[in-house]
Amino acid sequence: MKLLVVGSVAFDAIETPFGKTDKILGGAATYIGLAASVMNVKSGIVSVVGGDFPQEDMDLLNNRGVNTEGIEIIKEGKTFFWSGRYHNDLNTRDTLVTEVNVLEHFDPKIPDSMQDAEVLLLGNLHPGVQLSVLEKMNHRPKLVILDTMNFWMDTAWEVLMEMVSKTDVITINDEEARQLSGEYSLVKAAKKIHAMGPEFVIIKKGEHGALLFHEGKVFAIPALPLEEVFDPTGAGDTFAGGFASYLVKKETFDFETMKSAIIVGSALASFTVEKFGTERLKEITPAEISERIAQFKDLTTFEVEV
Amino acid sequence: MKLLVVGSVAFDAIETPFGKTDKILGGAATYIGLAASVMNVKSGIVSVVGGDFPQEDMDLLNNRGVNTEGIEIIKEGKTFFWSGRYHNDLNTRDTLVTEVNVLEHFDPKIPDSMQDAEVLLLGNLHPGVQLSVLEKMNHRPKLVILDTMNFWMDTAWEVLMEMVSKTDVITINDEEARQLSGEYSLVKAAKKIHAMGPEFVIIKKGEHGALLFHEGKVFAIPALPLEEVFDPTGAGDTFAGGFASYLVKKETFDFETMKSAIIVGSALASFTVEKFGTERLKEITPAEISERIAQFKDLTTFEVEV
Repeated sequence: MKLLVVGSVAFDAIETPFGKTDKILGGAATYIGLAASVMNVKSGIVSVVGGDFPQEDMDLLNNRGVNTEGIEIIKEGKTFFWSGRYHNDLNTRDTLVTEVNVLEHFDPKIPDSMQDAEVLLLGNLHPGVQLSVLEKMNHRPKLVILDTMNFWMDTAWEVLMEMVSKTDVITINDEEARQLSGEYSLVKAAKKIHAMGPEFVIIKKGEHGALLFHEGKVFAIPALPLEEVFDPTGAGDTFAGGFASYLVKKETFDFETMKSAIIVGSALASFTVEKFGTERLKEITPAEISERIAQFKDLTTFEVEV
Repeated sequence: MKLLVVGSVAFDAIETPFGKTDKILGGAATYIGLAASVMNVKSGIVSVVGGDFPQEDMDLLNNRGVNTEGIEIIKEGKTFFWSGRYHNDLNTRDTLVTEVNVLEHFDPKIPDSMQDAEVLLLGNLHPGVQLSVLEKMNHRPKLVILDTMNFWMDTAWEVLMEMVSKTDVITINDEEARQLSGEYSLVKAAKKIHAMGPEFVIIKKGEHGALLFHEGKVFAIPALPLEEVFDPTGAGDTFAGGFASYLVKKETFDFETMKSAIIVGSALASFTVEKFGTERLKEITPAEISERIAQFKDLTTFEVEV
């Protein structure tokens, strides 16, 4: 199996309480592709960049087995750029600059080499763009995973609803789940979102972990408490990438496998936040992943006799 | 073994998005005592109430095996009263009224019948009052559990530090842990708090669960996602009461037992929030507790093969 990723390939400039970066490689699809490569899963990215995008960054992806045929280069355009400053709690941030650039008129093109991808991960983009990807695929993928955000709920509700109705797994944060459903209780929110289409609802809670809802069942995983959260950028995308990659690897999409996939996603995300940008993600070894998964086991295992 | 509880016995008037109450029985020590009774653990409360405190409420505690000899009644005084309104997210609230009343000059008196308590749970009060309890005990209890809050960090830092230095287990929320330690990372915060005295640091995160830190080890438990969070009042106190009661029952204070105790506390707290005030807590059966603990197991158990 292989994973098709649609999302931004971008530049970020990040400021945290611990330091700041110049323009560095970022974007949801970048983190997802790198996470797939760490998991030894074949992936391909559909995205668009400008003439300013360095060959070096494209090589990085290719060398790690990420198919970049679907990354269109618009020579006269500029790559999407985001700049943000994290607050001291590292859980909130101010956006300083958003230059949408070539992403504004993003018209996704799926290369033939990726038409047979069984798992499609739609990174956070305009839901109309996400829908167009589904339409451009010759066969519907076996699993469609959707990432979205409150911005599209505010500005593109109807088309978002259509996209959600065609989704198998949706990943959103707790506030977005509440906004999407109009329910405060996350259990009730998940029920309403199930009714909109997705069989699986993943609610991301950042430093508080994640929840998975499916047919009245729920799984919860805390985030690994880390001594040093250096830079949260890309953590959510790494999570999604690790999650999807595990499913591709196991070729199974049931609740139990999704639970494991969430652990893998959380484990990978816990690396990403240790350094700026994609720096740490690129270095991860299989031994480190196993060790971190064991830490999650230790973190959450208990026995009670009452 | 038995549990000595020092804390408020009070009236609350509560408003949530789902309804409101008149003055009802509340106070940290009340929730803790009731949690102990649910766990079949002998407990006694040291507190103070006014002449307005109904005999009926005192009977309720006595009938459930909570020793009330240490609850002083100041006939001419009025019982502590708190009134608050929860926001829609049920995670934040506004205090509408705080009438400290007889609690203002609370001078705890430990009845002889409770001098031999092996576990002391000091509910959230002025740290000077908490310290005076320790001084009034003929023998230091085997385990001292401290609940405190940011208010005392702002107003009584030095005496709080003295109290903390004499504490075995401290329970605070995440923001308080950050304030107490001056560290944003909860791992670092726990380390600094260990150095202040407590061997065990419990960080309560409300709807996001709790963390337990001990000698470089960490345990994390999510809260049980509930369809209906009706009224969060007393959840933290129920948690502390269930936690302490389990330790009393097991007569063991090591990391593994504390992990189990946190599950029990979380399970009991998940009942408390289902109805107003102490209503649900009073009804819990042993079968329900076992069932809820099994739910926590289901909620958090996973297998991963990478």
